[in-house]
Amino acid sequence: MNSLHKLLVGLALVAVLGVAVADQVMAQSALQKVMQERGLTEKDVLAAAKTYTPTGGRDEYIVCSSGGQSGQVLFYGIPSMRILKYVAVFTPEPWQGYGFDDESKAVLKDGRIRGKDITYGDTHHPSFSETDGEYDGRFVFINDKANPRVAVIDLHDFETKQIVVNPFFKSDHGGCFVTPNTEYIMEASQYAAPLSEEFVPLEEFNDKYRGGLTYWKFDNEKGRIDPESTFTFELPPYSQDLSDAGKGPSYGWGFTNSFCSERYVGGIERGRPPFEAGCSSKDTDFMHVTNWKKAEELVKAGKVKKVNGSYLITMKQAIEEKLLFLIPEPKSPHGVDVTPDGKQIIVSGKLDSHAWVYNFAKIMKAIDDKNFEDVDAYGIPIIALDTALDRSVNVGLGPLHTQFDSEPGVCYTSIYVDSKVTKWNYRTGKVLDDIPIHYNVGHLMTMEGDSKTPDGKYLVALNKLSIDRFNPVGPLHPQNHQLIDISGNQMELLYDMPLPLGEPHYAAAIKADKLKPVVRYKSGWDSRADKRSPYKARAGRERVERNGNKVEVYGTLIRSHITPEIIEVFEGDTVSIHLTNLERAQDEVHGFAMYGQNVQLSIEPGKTASTTFVAEQTGVYPYYCTEFCSALHLEMQGYLLVQPKGYKAKGGDMQEGVKYTKADYETQVATNVATQEVINQVVGFITSHNYTDFPTVVALVEDATDQLGFADEAKAKSEAAAAKNDWQNAMLWANQWWQYQVKTADLGLRAKTHLEQNGAVKSK
Amino acid sequence: MNSLHKLLVGLALVAVLGVAVADQVMAQSALQKVMQERGLTEKDVLAAAKTYTPTGGRDEYIVCSSGGQSGQVLFYGIPSMRILKYVAVFTPEPWQGYGFDDESKAVLKDGRIRGKDITYGDTHHPSFSETDGEYDGRFVFINDKANPRVAVIDLHDFETKQIVVNPFFKSDHGGCFVTPNTEYIMEASQYAAPLSEEFVPLEEFNDKYRGGLTYWKFDNEKGRIDPESTFTFELPPYSQDLSDAGKGPSYGWGFTNSFCSERYVGGIERGRPPFEAGCSSKDTDFMHVTNWKKAEELVKAGKVKKVNGSYLITMKQAIEEKLLFLIPEPKSPHGVDVTPDGKQIIVSGKLDSHAWVYNFAKIMKAIDDKNFEDVDAYGIPIIALDTALDRSVNVGLGPLHTQFDSEPGVCYTSIYVDSKVTKWNYRTGKVLDDIPIHYNVGHLMTMEGDSKTPDGKYLVALNKLSIDRFNPVGPLHPQNHQLIDISGNQMELLYDMPLPLGEPHYAAAIKADKLKPVVRYKSGWDSRADKRSPYKARAGRERVERNGNKVEVYGTLIRSHITPEIIEVFEGDTVSIHLTNLERAQDEVHGFAMYGQNVQLSIEPGKTASTTFVAEQTGVYPYYCTEFCSALHLEMQGYLLVQPKGYKAKGGDMQEGVKYTKADYETQVATNVATQEVINQVVGFITSHNYTDFPTVVALVEDATDQLGFADEAKAKSEAAAAKNDWQNAMLWANQWWQYQVKTADLGLRAKTHLEQNGAVKSK
Repeated sequence: MNSLHKLLVGLALVAVLGVAVADQVMAQSALQKVMQERGLTEKDVLAAAKTYTPTGGRDEYIVCSSGGQSGQVLFYGIPSMRILKYVAVFTPEPWQGYGFDDESKAVLKDGRIRGKDITYGDTHHPSFSETDGEYDGRFVFINDKANPRVAVIDLHDFETKQIVVNPFFKSDHGGCFVTPNTEYIMEASQYAAPLSEEFVPLEEFNDKYRGGLTYWKFDNEKGRIDPESTFTFELPPYSQDLSDAGKGPSYGWGFTNSFCSERYVGGIERGRPPFEAGCSSKDTDFMHVTNWKKAEELVKAGKVKKVNGSYLITMKQAIEEKLLFLIPEPKSPHGVDVTPDGKQIIVSGKLDSHAWVYNFAKIMKAIDDKNFEDVDAYGIPIIALDTALDRSVNVGLGPLHTQFDSEPGVCYTSIYVDSKVTKWNYRTGKVLDDIPIHYNVGHLMTMEGDSKTPDGKYLVALNKLSIDRFNPVGPLHPQNHQLIDISGNQMELLYDMPLPLGEPHYAAAIKADKLKPVVRYKSGWDSRADKRSPYKARAGRERVERNGNKVEVYGTLIRSHITPEIIEVFEGDTVSIHLTNLERAQDEVHGFAMYGQNVQLSIEPGKTASTTFVAEQTGVYPYYCTEFCSALHLEMQGYLLVQPKGYKAKGGDMQEGVKYTKADYETQVATNVATQEVINQVVGFITSHNYTDFPTVVALVEDATDQLGFADEAKAKSEAAAAKNDWQNAMLWANQWWQYQVKTADLGLRAKTHLEQNGAVKSK
Repeated sequence: MNSLHKLLVGLALVAVLGVAVADQVMAQSALQKVMQERGLTEKDVLAAAKTYTPTGGRDEYIVCSSGGQSGQVLFYGIPSMRILKYVAVFTPEPWQGYGFDDESKAVLKDGRIRGKDITYGDTHHPSFSETDGEYDGRFVFINDKANPRVAVIDLHDFETKQIVVNPFFKSDHGGCFVTPNTEYIMEASQYAAPLSEEFVPLEEFNDKYRGGLTYWKFDNEKGRIDPESTFTFELPPYSQDLSDAGKGPSYGWGFTNSFCSERYVGGIERGRPPFEAGCSSKDTDFMHVTNWKKAEELVKAGKVKKVNGSYLITMKQAIEEKLLFLIPEPKSPHGVDVTPDGKQIIVSGKLDSHAWVYNFAKIMKAIDDKNFEDVDAYGIPIIALDTALDRSVNVGLGPLHTQFDSEPGVCYTSIYVDSKVTKWNYRTGKVLDDIPIHYNVGHLMTMEGDSKTPDGKYLVALNKLSIDRFNPVGPLHPQNHQLIDISGNQMELLYDMPLPLGEPHYAAAIKADKLKPVVRYKSGWDSRADKRSPYKARAGRERVERNGNKVEVYGTLIRSHITPEIIEVFEGDTVSIHLTNLERAQDEVHGFAMYGQNVQLSIEPGKTASTTFVAEQTGVYPYYCTEFCSALHLEMQGYLLVQPKGYKAKGGDMQEGVKYTKADYETQVATNVATQEVINQVVGFITSHNYTDFPTVVALVEDATDQLGFADEAKAKSEAAAAKNDWQNAMLWANQWWQYQVKTADLGLRAKTHLEQNGAVKSK
């Protein structure tokens, strides 16, 4: 629209509709100016409006995405595509104190491999806990492909609580997938290996290398995996890949695909064709069908033996007990996806152009009828492909993973080689739409797309190459998650989101209102063990205990000081510092870093966290709060003094840098009285308005009341010192009294602004 | 606008302007529907349009932000506020292989404190390298407050190249700040401590604890800090804080502020008022004025002695040589900011409500006139406040940091306690505007706001509390960076951006087009040392060398195999695996993870990276590529076999899982011939269009040509085997030939789609 047109429209509108519409036109004219300057199309503006989330706005869905080789998971919002948090899982992360405080070190210690610390993970497939097939917002589970482990993240505080190591595998790609009531978490091995730790030459691959599928028992009461009740299927040395759990009619069963059922071993350096040649030469691989419900009964009945301390269902037992079946599937498949109604299973092979729709009822019938085409080299019955199949649909080159729409029958498949997403109907086989993505999509996901009742609405394509999508940042590129609107008949690309850390493999999105995380811990809380810490300290009860060469510090943190501020130990002492954050206010986190000792803690309101180290070398080691918590944050400091063994203090006083007089004291008191008047005015404003209608303000007022209480304590100390003509301490405590006033004023002003900006009304 | 109004507008427009405008109205109606559904105002839509960046779009500015206690820095775009990359600096990060490959371990090793590995940092103030006072896009420098260190990040590949440890300090908050030609990087100590490693009791604080200011010499040729030519000012035991370097008329000088010039030592646990009380009781602290240009001359003239192996200018020498002066400044200041013209310096104190504007010419005059009001306890001359001051301006409660607009005299100050940003004129003292932020802003920044010619345009407020701004994610909240449009007279809030990891302290924004990062390395490149790696391997020249119990593997990576695929060593061997990525294609990164050995490398195109470990325990250790690089990515695998000492192979053949026949070979060849026809069609499409006009497509065609070359090699091997009736190898190499065809097709299809979507035209 050129400017003449704009003028005409404006005039026409004013003529027809009056001034209100003219304002509208003015706004539109500002919009068109921006569009022109930034080269935006109408479609771009629509996409912007569909994703932009104004200050204080909330996202409708929260995504949990694996962080790939970063060893973390991340959470972001849809539709805003803003990353809210990286949660540390397998890799130590200092901001969260993860792998730095003693409590989280204990979690990581459980993840050691053959006694060795592993300081990263290759996270792959996050899975939300489910109740009756619906995401319930309690937990997320994530696997580490490189070192076969599974971690439990509690969504009440977004912290990693547990890591378990697979007792049999040497890698796992196919995890985590939960059964409909989070009875079990499925984890399949990837690269075949001996199920023990022993060395076995590759020449014995077919005989002694094995795959497997572990059903980790989840204790829903305790919120932890129970390794004691966990069982594993021994499987052939195929490369087992992804899984999905049955639901509805297929409840009790699990489906796991595989590649390299050729059992090929490469060795390009010795003249053999590489793995990639030998692992993709057959036209089909095998889907493994496992009956976990019946297996559980066998375990409970004591019919399964433990190996390496864990239940192992051998292939022999699985075959005898009819727990395990194979069905051919198109070669090198990746996703295996049970439809929301649990009646069908969709598999697609990355070297194929079809999605294959299996029918669970047909599979059951074949099993009941013992209608098998053959057994594999290990005696496992094979159900013929056409016996089990409903249809195959040409969806494009390199289909990878399928997710579901809210509309029955409608699904979306990521197409790797063609770089697109295909929308199709798995009930009719009709292809409905496709949309190009940028580039080479791996997994995709729809909103609650793994659940019994997917929401549809949005789809995210997790693309592998971003190449030219973003400003360049060197040879290592971000990944690209593309948000696609799937609410209409045609898919519409809304947003490109770079991933700044790690290569996410899979993600899942939960309705945001299902998450109810806490903002503070119960006082003195060990968040990793989820219980009251034995090292909790209360205000005024801080102490240092020595037992031989072990020193235990029970300290506290509050705006803006650390108690104790001086810690004296001897060279060679083992020092444990336990710190409790006394704050109740939301977001009033304190950190704790110390020079030279590799100490960095994150201590959220209520938490108690600990650090233990050996004070190996004499010296002066400053420590301080690492979260900008208040105006006096930089002064929230202290010193660890590591004294030579046998050092005796000379007993001198501190050298005061400044001496204060009665006049200094009186000046400070006058300031404090004036400050109190300002505070009173702010308090007057707040209490004269309907502030109790604003939860944010109520929290601020609570916090401010606490701070004023502290001010009173400091005031009392100041007056006591003044009564003794101790002007040094009188002045210093008077200043401390003022510091609490400043903290009060800070809160009060924030409360007042909030009321002003949010239409509070004066009380009658 | 209600629906009647909308209808009327539509009709009016159609009447006046015809159908084109009706389309416009349709689009606007879709927009209004979205606005209504999502509760967006006109202002929101305008902000959305000002920030939304469509797929493939570029940001105008790139921000480098500290990552706080995460120990990293991050880069994000403005106005899109999308995070592009976390770059690992002080904390190991596996996605980047940082702290995992031998090359980056060497960088981290240089950052050890007293021989101890420190696996995190508390990054504070990033600073871009400058030429003639302008950001030049070559390097970023970042400090670690907790363990006083400075790191150099090269922007040609966004990798950390160097870490240096301060030879004197025990903490540093005030770094990094560069001089106008990156001659030096300023780093000030924070918490006073002995300048040596010895233990000194706090009772000797005033006499033996010291602060300091290091001018790290930067070698602009080598792109590395030169510790040999670096010098440090010994300073009083005040808590030195931030610095800024003079420019223009003040070139050659540096300015460093401080708090706790009271030299107060707390000890709340022993009844003393805490640090926060004693460190904020005086009304003023001291700005330190240092003459680095003259100091450099003294160093060059051999007049400065080395202590701990590094030049130390004692207070005595600095006073005698007139290198160091003090000026009172409002208490507990944070930012000290030299105006773009270098004529004034703005300081603001967090416990004050004024910004103080100092005049450099007045400071020089006072020095020339020896017009000092006093000396401090260490004999350093003090220039009286009013002698040096132009004005003080009431900008709000708790001013913290000031940045500059493109309009001369206009600046922006972050106001911590009042939670707002104030726009004012430091030449006239006039307050121009303010805008509330959410909440408690620390630093702020404007575009190129530290340079000689700030761009203005946008401002980012780095807020400390996000509280209610985002969907909740537990007790530890993201920080909030708010983007503000400062192009008009009034500031306008555009965007709230959560920070998912760490607490950034400071950030700087550079014009995006100044950055020209590479997309690949020269072949066989050690990116950390920035030279050809001695461990480079070429295709076909891979090898394993044993020397005693040391095994060196010289391997390569290419879609989709690792050479070697089998590595055999003995228990107890020290194994070094050196891997060169043979790819030239942009974004074709390969990773390398191995079970149980804590191995995870990131090997971008051209790079050679190494891992060294002791194979302590016998067993089978799968390894694989951790970047989804191709359709056969999962098959990009291998095995490390750790054999018992003295193990002798039994010499059997591999157990082939599948035996192939002549018929299998012929079927595969038929597939390959058909595939080649598809490829030829795609090639025909590409070459019949003006593809050379599209650099993306040219790169894809190059890569595809490489892949087809590899296909030819595999084809030749296949045919050679067939000629010998070796159908097993004939079939496998035929399949490898097909795998390269698939890779070619993948690239070709991406190229074809790009041409179709970007208006390529058929050549004549």
